[in-house]
Amino acid sequence: MQIIYSTLIKKASIKNTPKQLIVFAVLLLSLFLSSLSFANCKMPEELPTGDLGIIIERMDGSVLIINNSSLSVLCRIEGLGDLSHASAVFSRDARYAFVFGRDGGLTKIDLLKGKISKRVMQSGNSIGGAISQDGQYIAVSNYEPGGVNIFAINDLSLVAQIPAIYGESNMASKTVGLVDAPGNQFVFSLYDGNEIWQVQMDKKTKKPNSDITKYHNAGKAPYDGLISSNGRYYIAGLFGEDGLSLLDLWHPEKGITKILSHYGKGQKKLPVYKMPHLEGWAIAGDNAFLPAVGLHEVLVVDTNTWKEVSRIKVHSQPVFAMASPDDRQIWVNFAFPDNNTLQVIDSETFKIIKQFQPGKGILHMEFTPRSEHVWVSVRDNDEIIIYDTQTLKEIKRLPAKKPSGIFFTSRAHRIGL
Amino acid sequence: MQIIYSTLIKKASIKNTPKQLIVFAVLLLSLFLSSLSFANCKMPEELPTGDLGIIIERMDGSVLIINNSSLSVLCRIEGLGDLSHASAVFSRDARYAFVFGRDGGLTKIDLLKGKISKRVMQSGNSIGGAISQDGQYIAVSNYEPGGVNIFAINDLSLVAQIPAIYGESNMASKTVGLVDAPGNQFVFSLYDGNEIWQVQMDKKTKKPNSDITKYHNAGKAPYDGLISSNGRYYIAGLFGEDGLSLLDLWHPEKGITKILSHYGKGQKKLPVYKMPHLEGWAIAGDNAFLPAVGLHEVLVVDTNTWKEVSRIKVHSQPVFAMASPDDRQIWVNFAFPDNNTLQVIDSETFKIIKQFQPGKGILHMEFTPRSEHVWVSVRDNDEIIIYDTQTLKEIKRLPAKKPSGIFFTSRAHRIGL
Repeated sequence: MQIIYSTLIKKASIKNTPKQLIVFAVLLLSLFLSSLSFANCKMPEELPTGDLGIIIERMDGSVLIINNSSLSVLCRIEGLGDLSHASAVFSRDARYAFVFGRDGGLTKIDLLKGKISKRVMQSGNSIGGAISQDGQYIAVSNYEPGGVNIFAINDLSLVAQIPAIYGESNMASKTVGLVDAPGNQFVFSLYDGNEIWQVQMDKKTKKPNSDITKYHNAGKAPYDGLISSNGRYYIAGLFGEDGLSLLDLWHPEKGITKILSHYGKGQKKLPVYKMPHLEGWAIAGDNAFLPAVGLHEVLVVDTNTWKEVSRIKVHSQPVFAMASPDDRQIWVNFAFPDNNTLQVIDSETFKIIKQFQPGKGILHMEFTPRSEHVWVSVRDNDEIIIYDTQTLKEIKRLPAKKPSGIFFTSRAHRIGL
Repeated sequence: MQIIYSTLIKKASIKNTPKQLIVFAVLLLSLFLSSLSFANCKMPEELPTGDLGIIIERMDGSVLIINNSSLSVLCRIEGLGDLSHASAVFSRDARYAFVFGRDGGLTKIDLLKGKISKRVMQSGNSIGGAISQDGQYIAVSNYEPGGVNIFAINDLSLVAQIPAIYGESNMASKTVGLVDAPGNQFVFSLYDGNEIWQVQMDKKTKKPNSDITKYHNAGKAPYDGLISSNGRYYIAGLFGEDGLSLLDLWHPEKGITKILSHYGKGQKKLPVYKMPHLEGWAIAGDNAFLPAVGLHEVLVVDTNTWKEVSRIKVHSQPVFAMASPDDRQIWVNFAFPDNNTLQVIDSETFKIIKQFQPGKGILHMEFTPRSEHVWVSVRDNDEIIIYDTQTLKEIKRLPAKKPSGIFFTSRAHRIGL
């Protein structure tokens, strides 16, 4: 920058321009350039998008673009609003990240250009979203005013609003646990309505089909949901009763099945500091590893029978239990006040093979798609720690401001992520 | 182009250059430009790489770069030698495709620039390869002179040669069924040596570890291999005897297990027109769907017990049996003379739900990673047909010269692909 300034002044001097004018011009240029540096990043000219990702900086409403091959931060993008409970999905070409903010903001980030491509305030309070199988639609589930909004990916124009009206009094429900499913469908739960809805996008009208499939009595107060990686099983966690609600999307005629009826917060053995995240459920081989609600346990469940196989004692109340892509390890983080600890479970022996205490506020983990690394956000350290999953050793730290969610572009190619 | 020529002639005329010289220069320029147009393509300036892929054109030694969102061909790249039995892997950033030719050629294609980035003749006759978990190494298995060669991805410089010497007479074996495995390993089989070898790349020396794990008596004449999608099970098909050899990489101490001893060409009920491809084995849920050797059947095998569950009668001798990413369908193609037929099996009912006969020489199939489409190469039609997996209807045809293998960049993010 200094060189540019000098050159400018020099060139200007040659032409005998008044000095004040030059200084003014340089100041203007400087302002312009610094404004650019906030809005944009200098991204590499040729940038393949297969090994990129974003990290949510929850306090500042900013996002980092990272590269998981070079283990580096490429860019910080600001101005995304309230990211205190944010998540993201990616376009099928792995160019765009769509970030769902807590304040109802939906932001489209262009990873190639390192800037915000479009941002809309789509509701008063949102809780996450999904991208359709064909990559054309973004759906967002909302607390305020409830319901689900669907947007076109190109310009984030509103395609449809689905009010989640339930019961005889026509009440509007908060929606949660929104996922994409094969057949260009979205599936979500009505927290207030105790229902699960299944919506299909119509290829001709480019709108949701009017005949939404509604499953009534889907359990009391579903608070989150997940879909299995092949898109077959949708499972909703329940806040209002024990157990979980299972929907087999290959057999919708069977309706909702209640599973693990002994599982939940009903026992109230311990106060529940944080409800575990369902999207983090780990399915390794035939077993699913579930963070137990309010207990210092990870439950092991057989996904053929949906019966409990075992319980693994862990450090505290688990929040995320995530399987490595090679199915070999389950990484577990914990609720406050024990959110300084990370435990690694061997998926075969159910033994804890490693424990880390790198700092407070371990909020999220993301594995590289071929399983060699895991990235961990440590909020109070203002950093990301990258571990080698084979040696279980730390290999690098990256600075990040109060980091939470970490999302790699390889998610673009997975059902339900 | 015409404008450039005219301008050149005009400018030259001004300077009163002899006309013959101008024509000669223009011809030279023309030749130069046309050679360029063969070597390069005009690729989009901003090109995310998440939804790209390549299609092998086996007769002409050329490759098409395609986009599986816009369902279009972006570029043809020529000069890849003998591609009559070619396959490919992708770099972790999804920028480069590495194509393994039958003639021992290893070609690095730059998808962003639409051109060959580097090409080496690494042996006399090769049969496929793999990319390491960390994305730094390409390994190629060779028929002539046998063994495995390992290259650095950047410049395709030779990192190591592993001669597959077996037995007391120090014979060199052809190698087959080469795959990547977690822990930055390569696993492959010795066709002549009846062995399976497991090699780990050393992070410090950047060479293969000297202590290669060798499994002797791994079955007679292993002719191909596959690894399960979590990288746990390596399975070799046997040409010299019935059954298959299974290696559990989580338990190498157990050695080789013989499975499906009744399976193979031993029964000789029908002449075997083409040995089925093992990489195409479909694992959907707990079941693997295997193209039976020499029989008009697809075998269904329980992957927990590795015992046969069922046999599905199909049109002819299957070559590839491939599962859609949503585990819902198995698409099967067939050996000559029935290679004009494609059948779709419901993975749950084991029933054939659809049959297509779009043309002769149906050689390969590739699903989009979220399962909505499948691309099928129809060699004798000189075209690719794209089907919607939900409606089972054709949605588009693309011209391609004698197409065979189809490979999408989403493979970059899958173990063993």
